Amino acid sequence: MTSTENTLSALGARAAKAQKSLARAGSAVKDRALLKAAELLRNSVPAITAANALDIAAAREAGVREAMIDRLALDAGRIEGIARSMEEIAALPDPAGRVLTGNTHPNGMKIEKVTAPFGVIGVIYEARPNVTCDAAALCLKSGNAAILRGGKEAIRTNTALEETLRRALEESGLPADCVILVKDTSRRSSVDMMGLTDYLDLLIPRGGAGLIKSVVENAKVPVIETGTGNCHVYVAQSADIDTAVNIIYNAKTSRPSVCNACESLLINRAIAEDALPAIKAKLDEKNVVIAGDKETLAIIDGAVPATEEDWGTEYLDYKLSCKIVGDTDEAIEHINRYGTKHSECIVTKDYAEAERFLNEVDAAAVYVNASTRFTDGGVFGFGAEIGISTQKLHARGPVGLPELVTTKYVIRGEGQVRN
Amino acid sequence: MTSTENTLSALGARAAKAQKSLARAGSAVKDRALLKAAELLRNSVPAITAANALDIAAAREAGVREAMIDRLALDAGRIEGIARSMEEIAALPDPAGRVLTGNTHPNGMKIEKVTAPFGVIGVIYEARPNVTCDAAALCLKSGNAAILRGGKEAIRTNTALEETLRRALEESGLPADCVILVKDTSRRSSVDMMGLTDYLDLLIPRGGAGLIKSVVENAKVPVIETGTGNCHVYVAQSADIDTAVNIIYNAKTSRPSVCNACESLLINRAIAEDALPAIKAKLDEKNVVIAGDKETLAIIDGAVPATEEDWGTEYLDYKLSCKIVGDTDEAIEHINRYGTKHSECIVTKDYAEAERFLNEVDAAAVYVNASTRFTDGGVFGFGAEIGISTQKLHARGPVGLPELVTTKYVIRGEGQVRN
Repeated sequence: MTSTENTLSALGARAAKAQKSLARAGSAVKDRALLKAAELLRNSVPAITAANALDIAAAREAGVREAMIDRLALDAGRIEGIARSMEEIAALPDPAGRVLTGNTHPNGMKIEKVTAPFGVIGVIYEARPNVTCDAAALCLKSGNAAILRGGKEAIRTNTALEETLRRALEESGLPADCVILVKDTSRRSSVDMMGLTDYLDLLIPRGGAGLIKSVVENAKVPVIETGTGNCHVYVAQSADIDTAVNIIYNAKTSRPSVCNACESLLINRAIAEDALPAIKAKLDEKNVVIAGDKETLAIIDGAVPATEEDWGTEYLDYKLSCKIVGDTDEAIEHINRYGTKHSECIVTKDYAEAERFLNEVDAAAVYVNASTRFTDGGVFGFGAEIGISTQKLHARGPVGLPELVTTKYVIRGEGQVRN
Repeated sequence: MTSTENTLSALGARAAKAQKSLARAGSAVKDRALLKAAELLRNSVPAITAANALDIAAAREAGVREAMIDRLALDAGRIEGIARSMEEIAALPDPAGRVLTGNTHPNGMKIEKVTAPFGVIGVIYEARPNVTCDAAALCLKSGNAAILRGGKEAIRTNTALEETLRRALEESGLPADCVILVKDTSRRSSVDMMGLTDYLDLLIPRGGAGLIKSVVENAKVPVIETGTGNCHVYVAQSADIDTAVNIIYNAKTSRPSVCNACESLLINRAIAEDALPAIKAKLDEKNVVIAGDKETLAIIDGAVPATEEDWGTEYLDYKLSCKIVGDTDEAIEHINRYGTKHSECIVTKDYAEAERFLNEVDAAAVYVNASTRFTDGGVFGFGAEIGISTQKLHARGPVGLPELVTTKYVIRGEGQVRN
């Protein structure tokens, strides 16, 4: 056993013990703790921003790029946003303790299927301190203890946030150990978390493709994969070109760093010569680099040649791969082969083609004539999300509170035995 | 890549291709294939029983124990049972294509959450040929292709069954490759299946603790764990002794080889001297061996001393571990520590104690005053099951057709983009 395994087992045992009290606490107590956390976060702006300034200075010194520093940065405005998010989560319905189905067996037993917390949920994420609070709040609301392992660049900020959250728990009569930050931010601690089968009931990685791959390779605990989105927009033969231009421009450029941004464009050969120049002209407004196949390069100037690797790449940048396809079958096949099963879109006026695309594309969210950027817990009406699941087991698409509970069967009898 | 990896990849590609046709087929086509399979199974009794006789002869020669040979054996009666089960599955509602929720976004987009097949489901199981047909039928009904890897002792029988099932698919206009039996029954092929991430959307192991452990250690594909049941009955201080005796006798002896059988008895110290001799007397009718702690041995004669290992052992036999506990907290703690989160029971007359046990025991099915033997898809009204899940992700308890589909979000727009 390595020393992080020892440490993590100890943290796991503390979290598991704390969760028992949390599971017994009613919704009112949990909501009070969330509101208290919002209040203490607002009161702790100086301490949190001071810790954050140290993280940012260290990150700048280490040569971390500005996009990442922007994610790392917290100011009073962002802390206010986090506090409001806590209050919104408090206002959502409690996902635990719901009776989903129930019946009386012919022998008189009452059988109910009820929702129940998982127990201890681990979250591994990168240098985004807001995730510390969001994940803690969603776990707390759903009756789960949280073990949080954030990126090393945010450790001082996360430590300040953890301290605030734990104080809110204690002041609300709940054990502080309902929220535990893993202070060891070595690679080893995250691998060890993936094997913490004795204590972790669920692990949610939030981050880039490298983290997700590492989790799929190493995890022995149950996982909800989130985050990677190699999303396509397919412009079918019958597409309205203005609609196509607007959707691609929005899907690619409204926020290129997020997982629901479009990364790859497929265009039906029959419309390519009309559509592609119009799309290119619009994308030029944001200097989007197009990596195109040979036919693309023949139609527009300024594109770079795409390699096989481009079809599978999530750029998260002002870059887009582009391929001309012969028909919708080819488009669907390409998407099912190279996509990450996140969000996929067809632009078409053809009814049958739209329905076929919806049925046959294997992804969490499939769109007809709308931007892939809509795949989001807030947009879908869940109020809060811990990530976008690209797996098929348990949760697919935005993961909100309803996905953070499991179920159990509860059977009340009067001495019934089975024949 | 090993040769089984090669083989399995090839099988996976065939299954994935076949599944695309299956996903497009309507319920009527799938049901027709199931009814055809039932018909062909009935017509194939001589061929199947001949193959089965060879398996049984080989198993006897290899010294396989009779209990296992009983599970391996098929006769006309058992084949009729399998055929009827196919017909029952045909009559159940199609779990795919259901709209679970839906709403219209303020911007006019129609957002629906619909159920969809996983794709290709792998099942690894032991020498029970009925599982070949049950698993194939449940996968087919839910729109999933099935890759079946059964125990080596049943390979001739399974091959005959596969041939029949594939013929039924073809005669119904579906690709035969919707059901594929892995003919290589080496340990390696099952490990390679656990890593077949390119093709398997879900893996369901059905079997003993060794198989389940191997899957948890090795699987990179998503898994629904089934089957291990170290189930407890706790006799509380206020228990009615006759009720306790009946429940324990039923839970232990009505079918000791199954996962919902009771394996461990906990008795409150305050009632132990009254209850334990009565329980022992009833269990003596079936010569149940009791492995007891010191206090148990002091109360009854004929028990053997329990070791630490006994508390975690699923005997699947006429054997029961027994421990005296001080209170319900100790019982709950013991169950949560040693149980496999399958089925757990309290016998009590105390209302508050019953509710606390239901809330705090972490298991798929928790009972008050009823036998653990009821945890079963048929009993719970699901019509058919592929196993009892002891995990918390996606499916918990009996896994029926509703758990063999995933969901996807389908969004129909008119050019909407995100601000």
